[in-house]
Amino acid sequence: MKHINSDSIDKMESRFRANLFNTISGFKSANLIGSSDNNGKTNLAVFNSVVHIGANPPFLGFILRPTTVARHTYENIKANGFYTFNHIHESFIEKAHQTSAKYEKNVSEFEACDFGIEYLNNFSAPFVKESKIKLGLKLEEEHLIKTNGTLLVVGKVIDAYLDENLISTDGSVDLTKAGTVTVSGLYEYSKNI
Amino acid sequence: MKHINSDSIDKMESRFRANLFNTISGFKSANLIGSSDNNGKTNLAVFNSVVHIGANPPFLGFILRPTTVARHTYENIKANGFYTFNHIHESFIEKAHQTSAKYEKNVSEFEACDFGIEYLNNFSAPFVKESKIKLGLKLEEEHLIKTNGTLLVVGKVIDAYLDENLISTDGSVDLTKAGTVTVSGLYEYSKNI
Repeated sequence: MKHINSDSIDKMESRFRANLFNTISGFKSANLIGSSDNNGKTNLAVFNSVVHIGANPPFLGFILRPTTVARHTYENIKANGFYTFNHIHESFIEKAHQTSAKYEKNVSEFEACDFGIEYLNNFSAPFVKESKIKLGLKLEEEHLIKTNGTLLVVGKVIDAYLDENLISTDGSVDLTKAGTVTVSGLYEYSKNI
Repeated sequence: MKHINSDSIDKMESRFRANLFNTISGFKSANLIGSSDNNGKTNLAVFNSVVHIGANPPFLGFILRPTTVARHTYENIKANGFYTFNHIHESFIEKAHQTSAKYEKNVSEFEACDFGIEYLNNFSAPFVKESKIKLGLKLEEEHLIKTNGTLLVVGKVIDAYLDENLISTDGSVDLTKAGTVTVSGLYEYSKNI
């Protein structure tokens, strides 16, 4: 087995290190986060860092770097207080990934990447029409991770939309049936069997 | 599409709600966290909440509930300062999951669930012999999530062990080749293609 230590990590070429440590923790969830500012200007961004915080009541977190392209998502969440998680499925991996490209603040990735916008039951943030599993969240708390300036954003799930036939009798959601994908690193999407 | 709102969430049978919200966020990583106390007593526990925090330097986080079975892991990490992440592969899903059963403090899940202990290069926490991808971490910071009392534990990756042939020329780790699995909810493990 190859041993990589702090010394060799420091000396790695930066793209190589980024790829290594974005993949080495295992498969990740793939979600599109929908948000909008107080003027109704929408934003959509792919995130692979959604993490389960609790089930009763239901809380989910995600990690973001406020200094990158993700800052539009953060600004919107802070301004609006509500946002959405939308599953990425096999059928639209490419355009979902395209939301990670750099767009100007006045460009909505919903339009730029050809996603349908859905507003459901007066929830103030936009859902993705193409997603078969979508969640509406209310911002609950945030934590600054001092060591590298990233943020953990925690939200409470207050709405969920999915086909009834994806829910088993015990409550479990059949993600394989939904065609939900996982991501390894930043761009390797795969399906599960 | 079925609409689940805060009202219906509150009224759900608790096991149904737990299954629903443990699966609805998408596929999760599956890792065994190895730790030991200051007397060398080891502990091993399955976690599906590992989340990427940063690549340079490499940081990973995970969520734990200090009041559950996971508290041994937490006590050890606080006492020792170091711990390990070990990938779960297809070949040992069942015994990996078995580590989530309740054991007394004086029972090591390494023995109870038949895992080999490996100590590598004087790192003070135990690695899992059977894992093809293993990481040694140093505790960096922790954040109490007030809304439900869970903790985000952030560690710096200071050692990584894996077969050289799992690393692509661009640094990406081939998780499918390694046979690393994902988990949906608390017990549905699956492989990727």
